Amino acid sequence: MASLDQLRRQVWEANQGIYRAGLVTMHSGNASGIDRERGLVIIKPSGMDYDKMKPADLVVTDLEGKKVRGKWKPSVDLPHHLYIYRHRPDTGGVIHTHSNHATALAMLGRSIPAYLTAIADEFGDEIPCAPYVDNIGDHIGEAVIAAAGRSPVVLLANHGVFAFGPTVAAAFKAAVMVEDVSRTCHLALQLGQPKPLPPSEVKKWYDRYHSTYGQNEG
Amino acid sequence: MASLDQLRRQVWEANQGIYRAGLVTMHSGNASGIDRERGLVIIKPSGMDYDKMKPADLVVTDLEGKKVRGKWKPSVDLPHHLYIYRHRPDTGGVIHTHSNHATALAMLGRSIPAYLTAIADEFGDEIPCAPYVDNIGDHIGEAVIAAAGRSPVVLLANHGVFAFGPTVAAAFKAAVMVEDVSRTCHLALQLGQPKPLPPSEVKKWYDRYHSTYGQNEG
Amino acid sequence: MASLDQLRRQVWEANQGIYRAGLVTMHSGNASGIDRERGLVIIKPSGMDYDKMKPADLVVTDLEGKKVRGKWKPSVDLPHHLYIYRHRPDTGGVIHTHSNHATALAMLGRSIPAYLTAIADEFGDEIPCAPYVDNIGDHIGEAVIAAAGRSPVVLLANHGVFAFGPTVAAAFKAAVMVEDVSRTCHLALQLGQPKPLPPSEVKKWYDRYHSTYGQNEG
Amino acid sequence: MASLDQLRRQVWEANQGIYRAGLVTMHSGNASGIDRERGLVIIKPSGMDYDKMKPADLVVTDLEGKKVRGKWKPSVDLPHHLYIYRHRPDTGGVIHTHSNHATALAMLGRSIPAYLTAIADEFGDEIPCAPYVDNIGDHIGEAVIAAAGRSPVVLLANHGVFAFGPTVAAAFKAAVMVEDVSRTCHLALQLGQPKPLPPSEVKKWYDRYHSTYGQNEG
Repeated sequence: MASLDQLRRQVWEANQGIYRAGLVTMHSGNASGIDRERGLVIIKPSGMDYDKMKPADLVVTDLEGKKVRGKWKPSVDLPHHLYIYRHRPDTGGVIHTHSNHATALAMLGRSIPAYLTAIADEFGDEIPCAPYVDNIGDHIGEAVIAAAGRSPVVLLANHGVFAFGPTVAAAFKAAVMVEDVSRTCHLALQLGQPKPLPPSEVKKWYDRYHSTYGQNEG
Repeated sequence: MASLDQLRRQVWEANQGIYRAGLVTMHSGNASGIDRERGLVIIKPSGMDYDKMKPADLVVTDLEGKKVRGKWKPSVDLPHHLYIYRHRPDTGGVIHTHSNHATALAMLGRSIPAYLTAIADEFGDEIPCAPYVDNIGDHIGEAVIAAAGRSPVVLLANHGVFAFGPTVAAAFKAAVMVEDVSRTCHLALQLGQPKPLPPSEVKKWYDRYHSTYGQNEG
Repeated sequence: MASLDQLRRQVWEANQGIYRAGLVTMHSGNASGIDRERGLVIIKPSGMDYDKMKPADLVVTDLEGKKVRGKWKPSVDLPHHLYIYRHRPDTGGVIHTHSNHATALAMLGRSIPAYLTAIADEFGDEIPCAPYVDNIGDHIGEAVIAAAGRSPVVLLANHGVFAFGPTVAAAFKAAVMVEDVSRTCHLALQLGQPKPLPPSEVKKWYDRYHSTYGQNEG
Repeated sequence: MASLDQLRRQVWEANQGIYRAGLVTMHSGNASGIDRERGLVIIKPSGMDYDKMKPADLVVTDLEGKKVRGKWKPSVDLPHHLYIYRHRPDTGGVIHTHSNHATALAMLGRSIPAYLTAIADEFGDEIPCAPYVDNIGDHIGEAVIAAAGRSPVVLLANHGVFAFGPTVAAAFKAAVMVEDVSRTCHLALQLGQPKPLPPSEVKKWYDRYHSTYGQNEG
């Protein structure tokens, strides 16, 4: 069983990572991770400069959002993270960004079809865009879960991106990759209408990526 | 009461910040701050390399623009900063940039509607674009104040951006955020026509952001 | 005869180079080099962070893809590298990326005409785009070789870029330059229809570049 | 009288500067400076990595292009630099780039009207685009001089940018600024048709910028 300090380090690295990768600006966005055994979530504090944030600044809460440890207030987006953790028991990390290209497509309410082998690899299907919802109660969490399917990323119309995965590192990878493929798709859509890969082709890439790719045997 | 040296440091950091954030190029742009109690303004010198500028190079003037301290000439945009300080007593910092995406929208004379929850959060309404004015007398300052409303940023047609706020740090945040949301909006506008959030939705985000966000109690 | 350690260093530098140049994201892409005398290929491991990869992490295989040295699994794209090495005996290095601008044109199935003197210099003709192929067997290698002609780069529809050259450094230069000219071409194509240079003009630039340019006598 | 070593340092800094500013890629582009009293030009060597280039690697030639000092071959673009030095006796530095946004407009044969106060400030008029010419003899130098007028920058159709000025630093500033304003103009032109400033307004900005701006008295 990993220690809470290890999770704290992972969440801090993910928050630093989305900042250095240009997925967030000033105080926008946030990353969290969950310790399922202890029932604790670690998340970025609200409105804090990324480049001044230290691991000790992160906030620890329980699954109802009650602060357990930390001197700062947690991100105002904490309820959305918690909703995802409660409704997707396979989730270990959640990241929220307003990354420019993904959010631009979300501003138009557009899902991203599997135009690229990289989309097939990572997402296994089109990347869904949930309709606009306000910030009251669980509206955002509900919209994300309703739209997700097996995609590790949901775009939120007029708002931004939620990415998640079995680990904080997996959520980070999904957050980076959705911006990268959104950028390539946006560039192509400016010049013409690309053709999505048919589902049978998408499956070939997804299956290979999720069986033989990386250093773990499939 | 903060010392003048603290303000000098803040103004220097804001000038370094707009340079490192890519909001200014070569010698374009400038940041200033005001010490209301002493009636003194600190501003970037004219035509100086950002990466060679030291805090001691900044110029101190009174509210009529008379140099009080410093070996260099102040920015030629000093009169516009002073005009804003005189007409908006709640202003502690002013920043001028030609940041690319915001200026591109300004080149077309376009205000930026509240297409994004991030615009609602930070600006509370559409970000106004003032009509083109020349560089004579107070024309620029007048145009900025006439267009501002409660927005902390005004675009100036065919010219660039003025951002301001209760502190130098707040002006800096507004200058960074207007470029960020301009970039996302520009990307969306290339592909289609996004729908602005209705005023009732904008209010929800603005009110939350200005009450519960960050580390100060609302 | 260069040592295998020198080649290992070159391949590591090319992998670092494509990452620092922004041509690859997270785990996408890979660079390899061949030692023709020893019949050995050195390639990036599958799914490894670029910024944590050390030269010793690279994988050494023979020309049939059998691992000869290394603790990690090789890139899943190894078969495509090997196919190119077998069918182009003048090739010393191969690089695969999903670099955004080149891949956006590939997403539309577009070859890149010689719109620029820089394209004439480096590529000597239009940069070809091969049709979409799946990831089975040698389909990708075959598509690349069939489309290449004398171009050191082939775009693969809905997928990305393969670049190659007599050395690993030459493949790296081709991978960087195709993204650079794709970016400029994309920018122009957003605003209008540029005219390609006629073949007689392309020849002038290509011949000069390949005779008098650089520090080696033509 | 400045020493030749000072000029060598300035030319080296300009070459480093265009690389760090992203105006050149791999081996593209070059910067030079002239010592009018000694009749000597210092220029980048052909095909050398910018980040490995040391001041001692630069090549010294006379105004006919005969190498006077240095172990490397000079840039193949040397004749164009020399032509500009011979025909514009007020020129102290010349820079050639393929910077993406300026070159994209050049690819379409477009001059850049004074859409922005920043263009009026720096260029005093529209930035001209010379028609395509080949690389034979003085064709490029002739095209640049014929198109320049008082602009410190000329775009070359299907090719790139020549920037020059009374000093190497002035040429560098012009090369940076043309890419910056090209980027903003390109962004605006994607969404609509901006209106250029009328000549009487351009004159106001240019005259202020060239009289009261900076630290030298006008």
